[in-house]
Amino acid sequence: MKINPVKGTNDYLPEQTALRDRLQETILSVYRAAGYNRITTPILEDIENLDKSEGGENLNLIFKVMKRGEKLESALEKGDYKNLADMGLRYDLTLPLCRYYAANRAHLPTPFKCIQTDRVYRAERPQKGRLREFVQCDIDVLGDSGSDCEIELIATTAKALLKVGFEGFTVKVNDRRVLRAVLTVCGFEEEKFDSVCISLDKLDKIGAEGVKKELLEKGCNEDSAAKLLTLFEEQVTLKRALDFIGEECEAGVRLQGILENSLYLAKDRYNVVFDLTLIRGQGYYTGTVFEVALPGYPGAIAGGGRYDNLVGKFIGEQVPAVGFSIGFERIFGILQEQGMSVSLGGKKKLAIIYEGSFADAYEAAEGLREEYDCALYLKPKKVGKLLSNLEKSGFSGFAYAENIGEIRFFEQK
Amino acid sequence: MKINPVKGTNDYLPEQTALRDRLQETILSVYRAAGYNRITTPILEDIENLDKSEGGENLNLIFKVMKRGEKLESALEKGDYKNLADMGLRYDLTLPLCRYYAANRAHLPTPFKCIQTDRVYRAERPQKGRLREFVQCDIDVLGDSGSDCEIELIATTAKALLKVGFEGFTVKVNDRRVLRAVLTVCGFEEEKFDSVCISLDKLDKIGAEGVKKELLEKGCNEDSAAKLLTLFEEQVTLKRALDFIGEECEAGVRLQGILENSLYLAKDRYNVVFDLTLIRGQGYYTGTVFEVALPGYPGAIAGGGRYDNLVGKFIGEQVPAVGFSIGFERIFGILQEQGMSVSLGGKKKLAIIYEGSFADAYEAAEGLREEYDCALYLKPKKVGKLLSNLEKSGFSGFAYAENIGEIRFFEQK
Repeated sequence: MKINPVKGTNDYLPEQTALRDRLQETILSVYRAAGYNRITTPILEDIENLDKSEGGENLNLIFKVMKRGEKLESALEKGDYKNLADMGLRYDLTLPLCRYYAANRAHLPTPFKCIQTDRVYRAERPQKGRLREFVQCDIDVLGDSGSDCEIELIATTAKALLKVGFEGFTVKVNDRRVLRAVLTVCGFEEEKFDSVCISLDKLDKIGAEGVKKELLEKGCNEDSAAKLLTLFEEQVTLKRALDFIGEECEAGVRLQGILENSLYLAKDRYNVVFDLTLIRGQGYYTGTVFEVALPGYPGAIAGGGRYDNLVGKFIGEQVPAVGFSIGFERIFGILQEQGMSVSLGGKKKLAIIYEGSFADAYEAAEGLREEYDCALYLKPKKVGKLLSNLEKSGFSGFAYAENIGEIRFFEQK
Repeated sequence: MKINPVKGTNDYLPEQTALRDRLQETILSVYRAAGYNRITTPILEDIENLDKSEGGENLNLIFKVMKRGEKLESALEKGDYKNLADMGLRYDLTLPLCRYYAANRAHLPTPFKCIQTDRVYRAERPQKGRLREFVQCDIDVLGDSGSDCEIELIATTAKALLKVGFEGFTVKVNDRRVLRAVLTVCGFEEEKFDSVCISLDKLDKIGAEGVKKELLEKGCNEDSAAKLLTLFEEQVTLKRALDFIGEECEAGVRLQGILENSLYLAKDRYNVVFDLTLIRGQGYYTGTVFEVALPGYPGAIAGGGRYDNLVGKFIGEQVPAVGFSIGFERIFGILQEQGMSVSLGGKKKLAIIYEGSFADAYEAAEGLREEYDCALYLKPKKVGKLLSNLEKSGFSGFAYAENIGEIRFFEQK
């Protein structure tokens, strides 16, 4: 039998689990203080719901759960290989949330502000930092189209990141409608928008000439490509983008308010910037998109956006929605790399060493358990070795069960 | 798209999630106070590990995750329908723990005392109380064959159950080796032991005559069946069982110590009894088995036992191990049925009502968030309706953002 966890998943040692639990509790406490409530949804979802969810690339990364019994046999007999699975593991927490809201909205307040901290699954090719099982910490607001939602989500997510120990990060914000207006003004055909965005996203890496070359290869008009790239000759502030668009742009004005208020609430602890090239992969985003970048670490540590049409796919009625998700594994990985650790458990840990009756030792330990986490150890021949092991593994001290009042603390290093 | 969670799984509303979180925290706090540390393992396991795990009936209930890409195509082309899956969802937390211990034992203390509170999956036929996705709360001790482990596990699990609000429950304890000795004395053939146990387990339901009839149908010797049933003519205390066995029974003496000490630690808050018919389904149990029964609720609310050979299947070296698992969904279901509820979040909840600038309201609320969970609400036309909704959904009071010092508490009902 194989002793390693399956590819792309991790076992977590006690110290790692303690750090993960502490990080989650910290994030949860910030979210709860902002008036959000935690909900839980199943990890398993109907396979059709997942397939039809406009999850972008993630749709290719779904772990499928096989049908069972007669239904499986029947599909195999018919050679109906497309229908061997009836469920899948969710690839994010947003799709299950929309289904949840559709099913339970009669019991939920409006607006509905909720927390999800839970596991999701993607059949990624395992590589450094790309896990197949990972935790996301999301907050979402459903049933409110106002831009105050975005301001609150950005401020609250940033507060959680500050509280776990990050600083100097940048919240990048965009609105897909502003980007679309820019592309329209350039004269790109609407069906090419997604493809243009993919090339534009590489501007930092391959430069203006590289992007232009790609756009032409994709059959874009040369004038459109040239016009788009003139915009990027200087830093693209929101004002510059709106001037470029020329006409009234409602989404731009809305975005301006989000940026100004978010920057005001940041109080120089983090930065909030407009980034016209920010798109986010998911097909379901309809307006605002945001992500958090940390200097020195490629990729985003948090991301999200507005997905006003996704609940509607379930109930045929539009429900505005917006959410922000912290990539828990990214922040756990970074903090662990930076040497962050926490003591196991919340309380100081004592070893109670006993010989003879376990029950008597247990009773003696019970008297200390309001104040300490007390682990019972049968007295070994070599007590010195036990004590040095205890000290190494985070115990604060020890006592002998027959003399429980006399706690001996290890010297602080 | 389908709005209901997949069959056998649940969405949990904010109030339900709050209760579930509170129950888990309570159980965890008891486990931690006893010196156990939490670990986490993946929900996905290698399919061969699951298939070879001696999980009894649970092996028929594994959700299988399909291979992907070329490997799937290749298996389908070859008609190799037995090998379409490479992973499965774990059906319990014990098998992953043994794999974890095998993989990580160099980094773990001896004995290793750990906590797992996490989801497991079984493809049950959905019926009342039988979920396909459910949470278990386990504590286990690995690397220690002493009966003090059993005494500690029973006392600690019972303490957790008391702390969440149960009382008057019964911990039933048996040792499979005592039962085997009884069956040997009766003259049953060893290969029929499992089958005899299944019939014996029905004694309460079908009576002695019914059991005897079944045993004969299974081809058992009539004298053996008659002898076994004489034992059950009176209540089978451990003493009666040991007298019946007649010769020295080491497992019986060990069990005697566990029962006496556990009963002593129970202090009349719960009962601890010997139950010779207790078997538990899993094939991997080797000695002690236990479960907790609550009067008025059929089935067990917790169960476990000793599985000294399971780690050895991974590393070819025997590691003694024993664990006790609380069926979280059972206790959640019972407590919910009994009307237990908790306030959302740990702190009192206030609504902060604002008009005008969201950022100003956010800053005002921040000043209260050390003490209260504060949710921001844009002032609606009908404030009275908002206030009555807030009161209904568990808010303690409210304040207007422009006058944040003046908190108005709803009257306590």
